[in-house]
Amino acid sequence: MSKRLKICINTGGGDAPGLNAVIEAVTMAAHHRSWEVYGIKSGYSGLLNTNEIVRLTPKVVDGIAIQGGTILGSTNKGNPFRMPVCNVAGECEERDLSDKVIENFNRLGFDALVSVGGDGSMDIAHRFAQKGIPVIGVPKAIDNDLGGTELTFGFDTATGIATEAIDRLHSTAKSHDRIMVVEVMGRDAGFIALNSGISGNADVILIPEIPFDINKVCAHLMDNELNGRKYGIVVVAEGATPVGGDVVTKGDGELGRQHVVLGGIAEYVAAEIAARTGKDTRSLVLGHLQRGGSPTTFDRLLALRFGAAAVRAIEAGKFGHMVALKSTEIALVPMEKALSADKRVDPKGDTVLTARDMDISFGD
Amino acid sequence: MSKRLKICINTGGGDAPGLNAVIEAVTMAAHHRSWEVYGIKSGYSGLLNTNEIVRLTPKVVDGIAIQGGTILGSTNKGNPFRMPVCNVAGECEERDLSDKVIENFNRLGFDALVSVGGDGSMDIAHRFAQKGIPVIGVPKAIDNDLGGTELTFGFDTATGIATEAIDRLHSTAKSHDRIMVVEVMGRDAGFIALNSGISGNADVILIPEIPFDINKVCAHLMDNELNGRKYGIVVVAEGATPVGGDVVTKGDGELGRQHVVLGGIAEYVAAEIAARTGKDTRSLVLGHLQRGGSPTTFDRLLALRFGAAAVRAIEAGKFGHMVALKSTEIALVPMEKALSADKRVDPKGDTVLTARDMDISFGD
Amino acid sequence: MSKRLKICINTGGGDAPGLNAVIEAVTMAAHHRSWEVYGIKSGYSGLLNTNEIVRLTPKVVDGIAIQGGTILGSTNKGNPFRMPVCNVAGECEERDLSDKVIENFNRLGFDALVSVGGDGSMDIAHRFAQKGIPVIGVPKAIDNDLGGTELTFGFDTATGIATEAIDRLHSTAKSHDRIMVVEVMGRDAGFIALNSGISGNADVILIPEIPFDINKVCAHLMDNELNGRKYGIVVVAEGATPVGGDVVTKGDGELGRQHVVLGGIAEYVAAEIAARTGKDTRSLVLGHLQRGGSPTTFDRLLALRFGAAAVRAIEAGKFGHMVALKSTEIALVPMEKALSADKRVDPKGDTVLTARDMDISFGD
Amino acid sequence: MSKRLKICINTGGGDAPGLNAVIEAVTMAAHHRSWEVYGIKSGYSGLLNTNEIVRLTPKVVDGIAIQGGTILGSTNKGNPFRMPVCNVAGECEERDLSDKVIENFNRLGFDALVSVGGDGSMDIAHRFAQKGIPVIGVPKAIDNDLGGTELTFGFDTATGIATEAIDRLHSTAKSHDRIMVVEVMGRDAGFIALNSGISGNADVILIPEIPFDINKVCAHLMDNELNGRKYGIVVVAEGATPVGGDVVTKGDGELGRQHVVLGGIAEYVAAEIAARTGKDTRSLVLGHLQRGGSPTTFDRLLALRFGAAAVRAIEAGKFGHMVALKSTEIALVPMEKALSADKRVDPKGDTVLTARDMDISFGD
Repeated sequence: MSKRLKICINTGGGDAPGLNAVIEAVTMAAHHRSWEVYGIKSGYSGLLNTNEIVRLTPKVVDGIAIQGGTILGSTNKGNPFRMPVCNVAGECEERDLSDKVIENFNRLGFDALVSVGGDGSMDIAHRFAQKGIPVIGVPKAIDNDLGGTELTFGFDTATGIATEAIDRLHSTAKSHDRIMVVEVMGRDAGFIALNSGISGNADVILIPEIPFDINKVCAHLMDNELNGRKYGIVVVAEGATPVGGDVVTKGDGELGRQHVVLGGIAEYVAAEIAARTGKDTRSLVLGHLQRGGSPTTFDRLLALRFGAAAVRAIEAGKFGHMVALKSTEIALVPMEKALSADKRVDPKGDTVLTARDMDISFGD
Repeated sequence: MSKRLKICINTGGGDAPGLNAVIEAVTMAAHHRSWEVYGIKSGYSGLLNTNEIVRLTPKVVDGIAIQGGTILGSTNKGNPFRMPVCNVAGECEERDLSDKVIENFNRLGFDALVSVGGDGSMDIAHRFAQKGIPVIGVPKAIDNDLGGTELTFGFDTATGIATEAIDRLHSTAKSHDRIMVVEVMGRDAGFIALNSGISGNADVILIPEIPFDINKVCAHLMDNELNGRKYGIVVVAEGATPVGGDVVTKGDGELGRQHVVLGGIAEYVAAEIAARTGKDTRSLVLGHLQRGGSPTTFDRLLALRFGAAAVRAIEAGKFGHMVALKSTEIALVPMEKALSADKRVDPKGDTVLTARDMDISFGD
Repeated sequence: MSKRLKICINTGGGDAPGLNAVIEAVTMAAHHRSWEVYGIKSGYSGLLNTNEIVRLTPKVVDGIAIQGGTILGSTNKGNPFRMPVCNVAGECEERDLSDKVIENFNRLGFDALVSVGGDGSMDIAHRFAQKGIPVIGVPKAIDNDLGGTELTFGFDTATGIATEAIDRLHSTAKSHDRIMVVEVMGRDAGFIALNSGISGNADVILIPEIPFDINKVCAHLMDNELNGRKYGIVVVAEGATPVGGDVVTKGDGELGRQHVVLGGIAEYVAAEIAARTGKDTRSLVLGHLQRGGSPTTFDRLLALRFGAAAVRAIEAGKFGHMVALKSTEIALVPMEKALSADKRVDPKGDTVLTARDMDISFGD
Repeated sequence: MSKRLKICINTGGGDAPGLNAVIEAVTMAAHHRSWEVYGIKSGYSGLLNTNEIVRLTPKVVDGIAIQGGTILGSTNKGNPFRMPVCNVAGECEERDLSDKVIENFNRLGFDALVSVGGDGSMDIAHRFAQKGIPVIGVPKAIDNDLGGTELTFGFDTATGIATEAIDRLHSTAKSHDRIMVVEVMGRDAGFIALNSGISGNADVILIPEIPFDINKVCAHLMDNELNGRKYGIVVVAEGATPVGGDVVTKGDGELGRQHVVLGGIAEYVAAEIAARTGKDTRSLVLGHLQRGGSPTTFDRLLALRFGAAAVRAIEAGKFGHMVALKSTEIALVPMEKALSADKRVDPKGDTVLTARDMDISFGD
């Protein structure tokens, strides 16, 4: 393909360490082919409001892979198929502005779009693909709950931050014979809790995929006490639910805890443990700490490989596909595939078995 | 002094990174003089219950300086001058068991005690000194609020953890045009908030020493918005109070947030900012993360120097004194001095001036 | 299987972050089945000299996963099939002491051996398996050059340390318009250089799989200079060789640089660059820094999963097999498979393509 | 002072973590006073070649404090009082171009210069001050060898990196019963070696201030061996010298190891230990790793305080002074003071005593 293409990239949804690495690799790989690259600011907003488009060059992206966040600015600005539009009286309604996006995309002469995001963003990208936009998806899911790819960037960083936090809590828990309950991300999938809990030598791990019985949690901690381990670490995914599932919290874990939060799953679990065991029990919510900051080497590399693969996919004309990690290589999968199957912890998989072998309780 | 002494060491109060380094240095320095060293478990409890005393040797303490917590176990077991004693009916009263401690100290043939702790522990140590126990104090104050010494170990680690957290929050705050309010330790002194806030490029720092006006906080954030900085980081010491000081929270910051906590200063500040500015505002409490884990090199070195200096102070017979950092050297100060003057942020000192020069608001 | 087994574990070859995690998981999983576990010290030496065997219990291994090195002590003590034996005159010869090892294994009543190590150790384990010892292998290869498994523990940590070093060198190289040449591990396989070089934004990556032409390396750096990038980072695997391959060095990279080293590949490359370009050029050898210290969360988890899987493999009687990572799960592969095929960087794989797309030169 | 000043800043000598923090604070503090600030590129070169001057604004310096290096580019471009000037035939001579610098300084209308650097830079700044330039010095000395101030920025970061390296080497040294010799910065002053060696639990520390006897070093390591510690860590400052001082090396430690280096002090010490003890001994040179990367919180804060204090010093008209840390506050000292007295490790100070008490040998 000898044509000098003109492509654009946007990032959608909550931020994840590695977004800038994708942007850097897309820019470099396009530059390598003498293409032009533009960044669309604020999700799709930049294509509704065309002064929010920036030229991306090697100089602009030099070294940004190491930085958290995204240089394309706020990533959570709504779905163009259902965009809230308000009149002067403050009355709002959702409108489908997708044709306006397509019009601007064509008017600006773009040959392809790289869309980076989670399942929401992939759904939007898929719909644009169906309406004729040549789009390549790059998966982002800090919770690792997106189907179609074995892993996505951001997850290793978030798990590492959670593990480091758990490592730190051991000192204090042990010095004061205390139970520490730490809440980590994972509304629907418990990968972060599972992996950080095993790595961080937790006593109990509670995840959405395995409903827990608080009595069994307490019994396990009391068993440990009898065996001389007078402290305990409980790692709870924000979406963990008790058997029966009747706890209602106002927490908003994946996006952080809003100021109106009156309690979350960690506070509930801590209160129950304190009430039932009489042990000094504290809770802690990691929240936004898991999203920010410099990505790990693993996440930087994966995001860079995703970005370069997206450009190669454009070159090969594989529109409507998403880049994905498959074993040790990058593959292309149809976007439908990623959208059709969420990924969850396998309660019979070897990682859960490892936890059980290490005497970690899931409260089941 | 050619006599082979027999000395003991205890650690009191909340844990701080560096406690094990003090224990290691005391053990090594005593061993170097062919003395015997014993560790008293659980504050003074080990001297009320003599099977809680352990022999400390170079092999036992090898490499522990790098570890958080304290190998002498739970550190918060009460004041022997006012120890709660309960009968079988569960009725408790406080009793003065200090004579029992002194009796055991003498019966076990100890020549000196190294007592590591904060102002509470120094007060107890001072009272034992007055009753004839040859004691040397080692100051511990993760908030840096203890008088008599320029700095204590643990503070550098806690400040570093807070700064790293603030660094991480920038990514998310910036990507989402959000205000993030982060609560750090500091019930009476705002050193951690001040130092981490400046180092972490915060927009607002709220500390106990400078009462804040929430309207001025919001005005500063709105000024930034007008100048193109659409996000903000607010660092709040747990003991920060508004002008007038009428906020009552149930938070228990220094010791972490108890499970009964319904709200703390960070939640209050975030709610007020959200209400007054309409900005998406979130709060986060660092809590126990600041206490645990491996001490920084700075804290390790300071704690090791304190420990070795305590042994040299015993050798010199300087009982009733506390080791202290004075400029670049370790000095000895009478314990009364440490107890007579708490340390607070100087609102006219150069560090506060630096923050103001960097356009950081204290809400005043 | 209801029998209470008695198993043992040894670690062989150079150390790698994660060895202690394997030991912890094997111990915990065996304890979970009420089995007894013993650690053989110093490779197979402990079975030649039976006082070098230690009982492993949950208490002994509590929290060791976070520590580098191996609690089973020195790991590089020779091959029992060719053990050097010396007489009083200092004359040595290699003898096959494998029967002695088998005799002691049986006399001590062991039911199985978990052998952790690289290709050398797997070869020995395989020979013992052929002689009737019930053995399960756990792969270790900090360079990631071992066949049969997609990844092994230690590699993520080593790559992360290399990336962090490269990140740091950027500051100085940039501030001083300098070329920095950094040598990382990788005698036969360039995975560490490749992954850390891409993640760390290097300009040139030299690996054993792609022979380099020093003129092309210099031409690439000069091109950058013309484009305004006045500094450069060159990452060299210790086993990288020029086209023609006539460089002889005395470096001993995988095991660190011996004191007799007069020069290594990094010094050679730096000298050539300096001579040909006239740029201020410095070299640095990371050496042992890559092996030590706490494993990353990724490595801890993988090593723990390997350890638990090894115990499940014993339970299932799958002797002669090695645990391995296959996609997202742990699989068992015959030891022959791991031994028959070394793993190398695929010069046409997507990771190399990513590097080329990012304008990184391999000097080819 | 109500006048709107126009000031400039330059950075000289080798880079140190914290330079960007000084630049950020100077810019912010000047902006706070509605002054204009300019950065002079490449030391004083920007004032010889006036297109190397850049406007510094809050936007330009936003968040740079966290970055290593200096945004003002190459820092080591020579002394304007002795600048090498070459003719077309390649013949060079040193010329005094200071009047040209002064002429440009005045022509550009600058009211003050903030000069950041080590003793070389302070000497130049002092000479400009004597010739009438209103200059304020900011001390930089990664080795901590500059007089007049208790500490400078960069030292805490460098010491932390060295300690982390030593921590990592323990794993490997211990697993393989090996002696590891690690060379750290410190040509004239041994502060980095001393502080990192104590914090990192070294066995031997060799510093310029205490000449060492290699026989005593070996005797200490052999004593440890007899006591069961079969491995050892030796930390050597690049400027350490044996008693008698007859070792000539070609190492160039402070600026990293040039490609022509045939050996340095670490290689010498390792070779001698290996020859005399027969132990497996390896050496490692940290070199540039100590200079680069993000400054610690301690260094960021100190550099920011220095920068803001420099602006306040300009406001107060205290030209010819250098900002300095004195106890817990920033003070101003005459530049002569910093230049008149180098700072060295006190062989009788409490830090050296701490090391001796911890059974660390200085080889004396």
